[in-house]
Amino acid sequence: MSASSPPVVGIIGGGQLGRMLALEAPRLSLSVRCLDKAGAASPTGFLSKAGAVAGGLKEAAALRELAEGCDVVTMEIEHVSVPALEELERAGVNVQPSAGTIRIIQDKLLQKNHFQASGVALGEYRDCPDVASVEEAARDFGLPLMLKSRKEGYDGRGNAVLRDEADAGRLFGELAASSAGSGVYCEKWCPFVDELAVMVVKSANGDVQAYPTVTAIQRDSVCRVVVAPARCSAEARARAEAVASKAIASLGPGASGVFGVELFLLESGEVLLNEVAPRPHNTGHYTQDACAVSQFENHLRAVAGMKLGSTEMSVGAAAMVNVLGHSSGTEEGTLEVMELAAGMPGATVHWYGKDGCKAGRKMGHVNLTAPSAPELEATLLPLLACLGLDPADTSAGGRVPPPPPLVGVIMGSDSDLPAMSAACDILKKFGVAFECDIVSAHRTPEKMMAYAKSAASRGLQCIIAGAGGAAHLPGMVAAMTPLPVVGVPIKTSTFSGLDSLYSIVQMPRGIPVATVAVGNAENAGLLAVRMVAATRPGLQRKMVEYQEGLQGVVEGKSEKLQAKGVDGYLEGMANKSGTVNV
Amino acid sequence: MSASSPPVVGIIGGGQLGRMLALEAPRLSLSVRCLDKAGAASPTGFLSKAGAVAGGLKEAAALRELAEGCDVVTMEIEHVSVPALEELERAGVNVQPSAGTIRIIQDKLLQKNHFQASGVALGEYRDCPDVASVEEAARDFGLPLMLKSRKEGYDGRGNAVLRDEADAGRLFGELAASSAGSGVYCEKWCPFVDELAVMVVKSANGDVQAYPTVTAIQRDSVCRVVVAPARCSAEARARAEAVASKAIASLGPGASGVFGVELFLLESGEVLLNEVAPRPHNTGHYTQDACAVSQFENHLRAVAGMKLGSTEMSVGAAAMVNVLGHSSGTEEGTLEVMELAAGMPGATVHWYGKDGCKAGRKMGHVNLTAPSAPELEATLLPLLACLGLDPADTSAGGRVPPPPPLVGVIMGSDSDLPAMSAACDILKKFGVAFECDIVSAHRTPEKMMAYAKSAASRGLQCIIAGAGGAAHLPGMVAAMTPLPVVGVPIKTSTFSGLDSLYSIVQMPRGIPVATVAVGNAENAGLLAVRMVAATRPGLQRKMVEYQEGLQGVVEGKSEKLQAKGVDGYLEGMANKSGTVNV
Repeated sequence: MSASSPPVVGIIGGGQLGRMLALEAPRLSLSVRCLDKAGAASPTGFLSKAGAVAGGLKEAAALRELAEGCDVVTMEIEHVSVPALEELERAGVNVQPSAGTIRIIQDKLLQKNHFQASGVALGEYRDCPDVASVEEAARDFGLPLMLKSRKEGYDGRGNAVLRDEADAGRLFGELAASSAGSGVYCEKWCPFVDELAVMVVKSANGDVQAYPTVTAIQRDSVCRVVVAPARCSAEARARAEAVASKAIASLGPGASGVFGVELFLLESGEVLLNEVAPRPHNTGHYTQDACAVSQFENHLRAVAGMKLGSTEMSVGAAAMVNVLGHSSGTEEGTLEVMELAAGMPGATVHWYGKDGCKAGRKMGHVNLTAPSAPELEATLLPLLACLGLDPADTSAGGRVPPPPPLVGVIMGSDSDLPAMSAACDILKKFGVAFECDIVSAHRTPEKMMAYAKSAASRGLQCIIAGAGGAAHLPGMVAAMTPLPVVGVPIKTSTFSGLDSLYSIVQMPRGIPVATVAVGNAENAGLLAVRMVAATRPGLQRKMVEYQEGLQGVVEGKSEKLQAKGVDGYLEGMANKSGTVNV
Repeated sequence: MSASSPPVVGIIGGGQLGRMLALEAPRLSLSVRCLDKAGAASPTGFLSKAGAVAGGLKEAAALRELAEGCDVVTMEIEHVSVPALEELERAGVNVQPSAGTIRIIQDKLLQKNHFQASGVALGEYRDCPDVASVEEAARDFGLPLMLKSRKEGYDGRGNAVLRDEADAGRLFGELAASSAGSGVYCEKWCPFVDELAVMVVKSANGDVQAYPTVTAIQRDSVCRVVVAPARCSAEARARAEAVASKAIASLGPGASGVFGVELFLLESGEVLLNEVAPRPHNTGHYTQDACAVSQFENHLRAVAGMKLGSTEMSVGAAAMVNVLGHSSGTEEGTLEVMELAAGMPGATVHWYGKDGCKAGRKMGHVNLTAPSAPELEATLLPLLACLGLDPADTSAGGRVPPPPPLVGVIMGSDSDLPAMSAACDILKKFGVAFECDIVSAHRTPEKMMAYAKSAASRGLQCIIAGAGGAAHLPGMVAAMTPLPVVGVPIKTSTFSGLDSLYSIVQMPRGIPVATVAVGNAENAGLLAVRMVAATRPGLQRKMVEYQEGLQGVVEGKSEKLQAKGVDGYLEGMANKSGTVNV
């Protein structure tokens, strides 16, 4: 990290990943040199201050030329020649991740064996040296069965799903032919709920840090959308980060850099490792605009022997949308989504500078950020619509899970709903995403515990709880969540809600409940809006306008009173009893 | 914005601003060509896909060479030759901002005349063609008097402060000599509280958008630190954005690009324009990491005729710290602050790639982001300390204004302080920045109104208000702020606080108060922490730990009771009356 003689990082591959590495290098006072068959004309070429070498990624001579003057050689793609990397290492070149690491990772069967031996949670798999072994696996694991080439697979290429045992011979033959002699193995079908991914960065001295878990949405085996943090419970996210970190830590010395770890989230909440890529990964692009230190910067830092940067997100929520070449193969279709994104708040466009636009080719991506997941939908959904992607469609891959709501509205009984619906009306009016459920402290104590304990990890930022009489729900929920809980004392026939009020407001030291007036769920909704608006200027402006509106209502009544006089005004009132309704 | 034939932007100047423009160009599918005396060896040189021209920035021939193949020519510095720009325009080159705009802006006296004629708020100033006019201005405006060269000034060069009329001749002579024949003018001394700055972007079609106002901290006339948003009231920020936008809009057609607008904030809250730079500006560097679309991207978009991107911040607070060459002139001293920043959460380092490290030379900067201003201090203050910058020192320039607190604790009387201090203790325990004051609804109604109305704009995210008896403070404050207000009913001798409770909790529809138990200010503090923790994962973890601690306390008592038995336990208790203290 010196200003006058910048270290040089050699990158095998000059595609978009190399380009995005190269774009972060100058800030770090690093220089880049790249190897690509298009050389200087590759997306990374002109950004390579230390030169671009034209040549094949597996050619030993080209790799030697790349390594000239480099302090370290890394890669943007794992489909490289391990013997050629080993030759570099023997010649004293620092290769990161090392040839030995790439040997394990580029062969998915060796990868599985390594992670299984390291105690990383994995699905079942089996080597398939011949058709008979495929048929045997189909009987043992059941159908469908996932067949994969051991090497050279990406974006679904090198994968085949066996749905009928009669196809075993044909599929095995096709995969064996396309696997460049590497062979075939199979994986037991994994009935996952969602696909998750974690970028993990590992420094030369063994420091391992994980970026937040994301949900990766694939369609037709190509990553289309990533949402961060993953739209699952905080516990599942933590589990994914633990599995991913354990996997990368197991690679041992000589494996510095970032690693893209793909995982499966099962219905049970269990998380299994799927595959690892030894480089910046499509599921980590969101870090460019959602983190102070992106996956690209941390990869450069790690391979250059610098200390790692923070992997924390600096925004509440983010998404990445891939922009593929339009089905027409023309630029015009591809431009449309970028043009839309360019005018959106919180959107950053990333073109890859590729020559020519082919249908399905990765041409760029858009990163979106927002204070939290519900706000992200305001930009994410129009972009998906523009791309013709239905978030809920699972016919060709994963869904885009819906964002968690910000506010939970709960009550002890459906008899509280007529009173509590006023809170929901307010949340709707202000456009604050909420969920509503019946949760009784006395009749469903276990449901209540589960609700309270999971609330924060599910993404809620506030809970409104209504209860009457021996009104325990708000206080009991507050005892089991770190979130602010607003309590609504429901009006009772016995004590007009005074019993509810005392039960809710007189909480012991240590556990607060934000209590509103008896039967005033509208105010509970407004209090929740004020809470979430404190960090959302647009929503806070809406609250100011609402309060100005209240002023207008009273001024209107004042004018009417002046015009009609006291008696005339009273004649028009429904409630003339003299009892005040608040 | 086409993938195959990217528009080319020519940049006059190849320093750090050109470099940071060039680093954002590839993402937008734009190519850069630059002109610098160091050509390809300049900081921008190797990033110039469309070539780097070696030549002087004021040489007509060099400018013509730069313009070859460019779709538009812009600049990173305003000290250029207007006749040479005009020549380009006559030859059909699209220059942005136009030669006419640069003519006005590069001559600070013409700039003042233009903005004054456009009705932009300015301090008093006067042309000083000779020493006699300086002496006359000193008598009219008083001393000290700010003398400035009309052209070529930057970072305090070209400025001189006249403190003694006897020095008028000498200072005038020095400035006149260094002004390259442009002449001298003077400005009446402006007793500002803080210096503000606003980046404004203007598109070719006249669309004008302002980034948030920042506080710019200069020391010895060099910008050292920027904090965003500015640490002043939201009203003053809005005023600054209005003044800046009006100024830039007044430049009319042919003035596309970003403009750095420097302003003075006066004690009265009034905001006056200081100077405008027609290019990306040091006070806008924070936008690289705090906004989805940075000043550099928006400059490129504007000059290339693309639609403007959002100028909103995507984080709650940000700061920029300039890294100047160490006073030793060595790299080692300069590296220290960058090394410190590289390990900080929310910090992004930006080296400029300059050859050689001279004392005081701008070598790079660090951007910091955080959810809100108080959290920013955790990284900003250590960086300032590393640079030897005392935030409060005003001997050589501006202070770094302290961050606004997140929570306000107020009460009607000092007699409430013993009860209310428990809220402050909790806020201290959790490290939540707060302010504490006595504000009485009945005895200081105007202070209360001012407090409530300014609370959100000053940066508070929650107010805790304690009151007893006819306890109006919480509800009245809630009526005049969009923030959540927590009400603490103070225990009274007449009704044990039941009067306070009813006064606080029974608010009418429309205005909620989050009421806690009578006398339980500790819970009010905890509620405020829960509110601000909802968007701060680290703080929320602390709340979970606190709740686990409560569990531990009760379990300890349980063990003691089992060990000592009921009678033994009671013997050790201070309160054996049977009355429950909550």
